[in-house]
Amino acid sequence: MQVIDSIARFRKALDNERMHGRSVGLVPTMGALHEGHASLIDSAMRRCDVVAVTVFVNPLQFGAGEDLSRYPRPFESDLALASGQGASYVFAPSVDEMYPGGVRTTVHVDELADVMEAATRPGHFDGVATVVAKVFNAAGPTIAFFGEKDWQQLQVIRRMTVDLSFPVEVVACPTVRADDGLALSSRNAYLDGPERAAAAVLYRGLCAAAALASSGERQLARLRDTVASTVAAEPLVQLEYAEALRRHDEIRLLVAARVGPARLIDNLGVPL
Amino acid sequence: MQVIDSIARFRKALDNERMHGRSVGLVPTMGALHEGHASLIDSAMRRCDVVAVTVFVNPLQFGAGEDLSRYPRPFESDLALASGQGASYVFAPSVDEMYPGGVRTTVHVDELADVMEAATRPGHFDGVATVVAKVFNAAGPTIAFFGEKDWQQLQVIRRMTVDLSFPVEVVACPTVRADDGLALSSRNAYLDGPERAAAAVLYRGLCAAAALASSGERQLARLRDTVASTVAAEPLVQLEYAEALRRHDEIRLLVAARVGPARLIDNLGVPL
Repeated sequence: MQVIDSIARFRKALDNERMHGRSVGLVPTMGALHEGHASLIDSAMRRCDVVAVTVFVNPLQFGAGEDLSRYPRPFESDLALASGQGASYVFAPSVDEMYPGGVRTTVHVDELADVMEAATRPGHFDGVATVVAKVFNAAGPTIAFFGEKDWQQLQVIRRMTVDLSFPVEVVACPTVRADDGLALSSRNAYLDGPERAAAAVLYRGLCAAAALASSGERQLARLRDTVASTVAAEPLVQLEYAEALRRHDEIRLLVAARVGPARLIDNLGVPL
Repeated sequence: MQVIDSIARFRKALDNERMHGRSVGLVPTMGALHEGHASLIDSAMRRCDVVAVTVFVNPLQFGAGEDLSRYPRPFESDLALASGQGASYVFAPSVDEMYPGGVRTTVHVDELADVMEAATRPGHFDGVATVVAKVFNAAGPTIAFFGEKDWQQLQVIRRMTVDLSFPVEVVACPTVRADDGLALSSRNAYLDGPERAAAAVLYRGLCAAAALASSGERQLARLRDTVASTVAAEPLVQLEYAEALRRHDEIRLLVAARVGPARLIDNLGVPL
């Protein structure tokens, strides 16, 4: 596995793979890799000839007062996980390599742009769209793999990819969960024992609403309230929002909450 | 020469060229091709194995009350010119093909973002950056060719290309001028005889300031005033702005004016 910190060398290495007719799978991450990322890499290995994992804690998608400075950066164990999963490249650029002279170009996507994460974290998705556009250009992937855990992010990236005609297929991979249902997240590392136990209430709230939806409930406000009231019953968890959206052929249930020092999000889809 | 109106087929055709090891030169235009465009295609022919010309009057870069509806669209003669210059592809998509369901993703470039064209035409360069990003992704060019006549646009595109790590070399081609110095522009077609004669004052104003700069004048306000006063002496021409900028290793002189129904821009660089 090659570890590359320069955009030019990353592009060149993958151009060389393409020249040999090999398809490139891209797994963009902020590092602190866990089994969720492992499953993304695994999907990429099954679909593509070579897999590149990017590890970049993107300052552009963090707001003031968020956890940019304390975001976990266990680089050696990230390399071990990526290598163990069979990745051929890890692209780990510095902030200076990605944004020399600051950020003068931004990509804005008007997709769910005033609700949930977009409302709670102003500028967050501009930061996501911009870095993903840049990484798409740097890597030139055939397929890029993103976790369904960040569902709203996934919608933003899908929209950007179509709107700007990136020649990239975006594949969503299912959320990986702990035994008690908590969605795996690098931010779970912030939790102490009692907080970690309490955090599972997010998934329980989603499941309660999903059960209601599956039994025929179509009033989105009722589904939202079910998530909210379930989460509210757990004193260690402060709900930020609960949401239920009708999209295409499903109801999507979403939740965000603070648990101790962590801000966690999760979601679940119910097919219609 | 192939004429293609679908993004997918355009990408596929050029992917096929790349698979055969051929470099792709891209000349993005709004059609109404003239000798200025011919020189862009000519530069592309000299540097690249195959040349693609895009012909798309991009509504996104026109403001309310601008000339979108009357912008000239002489498609057959555009095809003849592109073909005569040796282009292999003309990509001429419809607005629906480029922006199905409207525009949800935009690219913003913070480069000279509050002066000259950016100040006079709000949103113009977002429209330019967005369509160029999209055409870059659709074509995947090795080199893209732009006219120096649209100097501020060129700076925006260069900045975007670097910032978003597009694997594209941006090449600027010198402005092509009529015998009296008027920069060739598709909008010159709007001018009647007296207006056409009067329009040459833009170039005379730039030349007067360039002569002053070449003789040692470094006060930008003096250079700007020289452009402005020269243009103001011509009653058929209404000055919009005159500007003199120090950039890197040159002084760049720029002007915009209304001449009858046309809004014209021009510029000239003086090496330091």
